[in-house]
Amino acid sequence: MIRYVLRNARLLSCADGADGYMLQTADLAVEGDRIAAIGDLPASFRDAERRDMEGRIVTPALIDCHTHLVHGGDRAREFEMRLEGASYEEIAREGGGILSSVIATRAADEDALVASALPRLDALLAEGVGTVEVKSGYGLTIEGEIKMLRAARRLEKLRKVRIVTSWLAAHAVPPEYKDRPDAYIDEIAIPGLRAAHDEGLVDAVDGFCEGIAFLVPQIARLFDAAAELGLPVKLHAEQLSHQGGSKRVAAQGGLSADHVEYATEEDAQAMAQAGTVATLLPGAFYTLRETQLPPIEAFRAAGTRMALATDCNPGTAPMTSILLAMNMGATLFRLTPEECLRGVTCHAAAALGLEDCGVLAPGCRADLAVWNIAHPAELSYRIGFNPLHERYHGGVRC
Amino acid sequence: MIRYVLRNARLLSCADGADGYMLQTADLAVEGDRIAAIGDLPASFRDAERRDMEGRIVTPALIDCHTHLVHGGDRAREFEMRLEGASYEEIAREGGGILSSVIATRAADEDALVASALPRLDALLAEGVGTVEVKSGYGLTIEGEIKMLRAARRLEKLRKVRIVTSWLAAHAVPPEYKDRPDAYIDEIAIPGLRAAHDEGLVDAVDGFCEGIAFLVPQIARLFDAAAELGLPVKLHAEQLSHQGGSKRVAAQGGLSADHVEYATEEDAQAMAQAGTVATLLPGAFYTLRETQLPPIEAFRAAGTRMALATDCNPGTAPMTSILLAMNMGATLFRLTPEECLRGVTCHAAAALGLEDCGVLAPGCRADLAVWNIAHPAELSYRIGFNPLHERYHGGVRC
Ligand SMILES: [Zn+2]
Ligand SMILES: [Zn+2]
Repeated sequence: MIRYVLRNARLLSCADGADGYMLQTADLAVEGDRIAAIGDLPASFRDAERRDMEGRIVTPALIDCHTHLVHGGDRAREFEMRLEGASYEEIAREGGGILSSVIATRAADEDALVASALPRLDALLAEGVGTVEVKSGYGLTIEGEIKMLRAARRLEKLRKVRIVTSWLAAHAVPPEYKDRPDAYIDEIAIPGLRAAHDEGLVDAVDGFCEGIAFLVPQIARLFDAAAELGLPVKLHAEQLSHQGGSKRVAAQGGLSADHVEYATEEDAQAMAQAGTVATLLPGAFYTLRETQLPPIEAFRAAGTRMALATDCNPGTAPMTSILLAMNMGATLFRLTPEECLRGVTCHAAAALGLEDCGVLAPGCRADLAVWNIAHPAELSYRIGFNPLHERYHGGVRC
Repeated sequence: MIRYVLRNARLLSCADGADGYMLQTADLAVEGDRIAAIGDLPASFRDAERRDMEGRIVTPALIDCHTHLVHGGDRAREFEMRLEGASYEEIAREGGGILSSVIATRAADEDALVASALPRLDALLAEGVGTVEVKSGYGLTIEGEIKMLRAARRLEKLRKVRIVTSWLAAHAVPPEYKDRPDAYIDEIAIPGLRAAHDEGLVDAVDGFCEGIAFLVPQIARLFDAAAELGLPVKLHAEQLSHQGGSKRVAAQGGLSADHVEYATEEDAQAMAQAGTVATLLPGAFYTLRETQLPPIEAFRAAGTRMALATDCNPGTAPMTSILLAMNMGATLFRLTPEECLRGVTCHAAAALGLEDCGVLAPGCRADLAVWNIAHPAELSYRIGFNPLHERYHGGVRC
């Protein structure tokens, strides 16, 4: 059994409450893959190995709670065409947009999806991330969506990381269901969900609720199917317009409503009451050069917990830096560094329904990030700089 | 003598002209620290070592042509206070703003400045940067400014990098010269320049031309002193307002006018005629949440060359990613990926007055970046992802 003590560390527990952001110099004891104690050590640790952290700041390993990390192809050429002045029609004619990612993902086999996701995953892990949510959503057939989640699950065997999956068949209406979103929900999204769930591939059910994707009544049918299976729900909601998705997800006690630029005070209150987290995705806001800011003050006033994530995806956020998501949360959304840090630790854990990570507390997983910084605010202050000293995953130094 | 051939590489020469952005599969021969040939190889290379690039894209090593990499302290706590709602008065009372960097830089000795700059430099080099410009500007005494440039020069001995220095004593008016900017120019900036030049510390003379710093007549006196010493000039110009600095720097055939958000069409034409580069700094634009975009169309129309740089500094751009500067150039300023790449290669070299780097051509330094990418646009498309495979500096693999 692994058993050691981290000494001379400055701990930031990230637990809810004012002292979660206060540096506490205390011993942290690890047994197996768990934090056994903080502060006073049990007698069993009297002779345990001591590791000197040399005064470094230690936080929970970070959590990226919203990614589309597994996908085929990239959209670099589309990015370039747009900047060279090509019209949307020209880009569509060359197969641009989300459809190009669908085509590339359908064409890739599971091995290829895993191989292309690994460098992106490694970039996240190098910044102290220990848990990554990964969605399906570019297959848009039952087999294609299942293939994506199988690839996602395999990542966990290849790297020291915890993967949490979301079934996002309701991401876009594929060409073969053009103008028939209801049929797509009934024939692909729901039956596929049942099949994927049978295979143990689904940790939560997600959707894209927007005029260009699916409307609340369609999402609601999918969510009913999720409830039948006992699966939690979450939703891409109020990103480009107000559609009422965040209220629908809150009504089901859902995990999170994501993007939420167009959410209202009423939405914020409903989410707070339901315990639904607002997952903010400043990378997409930045890439799309949006101007509608999420209602941060309303979330604060209502007590809605806010998470931050990369949204790593090939179209609107080809981003693989959780630290940059923190900086963007501060710079673009005016979150405080404390809110940014909670957004990628305790509140990100809540957005994934996880209770054993995202904080430093006895009984939680020993997923830790050790930083070469003097002050916690440095994590969101710096841009494109990685001060990670080392990471622990389930008690094991990576 | 080092002598080898890179085979099976896809070369992007980055030279001016349409084919500089076209992939060319050709052998590249290195002799000593120089590119000896591209394409047909001299007979002397018949038996030289062959290195297989496996089809990777090779560009010139990148050039960060505007940084304040050497400085004392950081401003993370000030960043946090502002986001927590502190007023400018409260921040000033706690010693915030540029003055806090001056105090920290004055308090640091040369060794400490070098030690704190190294992790920032390493972050740049890890992304394929081979040349970094470093400014003084936080000492604001003769000895303090000289100390900064000595530290900058030492970086070149500690890492495989070329350092180009700028004398930026005219960065801010220090407290002891409050309301006496002319006296500061005459008593510190100009005599200090002469002393630093005697020590071989100055590659160019820089200034901050703005209402809150120095006005054109003060900058002009400094530039006259630079001309006497035969030193090229450059200028932080038209960042927050139009002061006429870019025209002044062009009138002297200066290297670059930097920031230039408020530059006019006339400025763009004057700069193009003088060969003065427009160095764009989207990281500061982003951090300050500016809305005034630099006149990209006017620069294109006039043929003004555009460079891109990190502006790495503790206040308005604590940024150490040249790839992110490229993405911001594309996302925020709507530069094409080709313009972004030229902005950190050939045009950045021009902004530093260097003619032997920033392009792949016989006779140029063998400063190379080898990338794990399929298309050049990926370098500006991705956010917070580093696809560097390896870097060569003066012919030596780093
Ligand atoms: Zn998403
Ligand atoms: Zn500057």
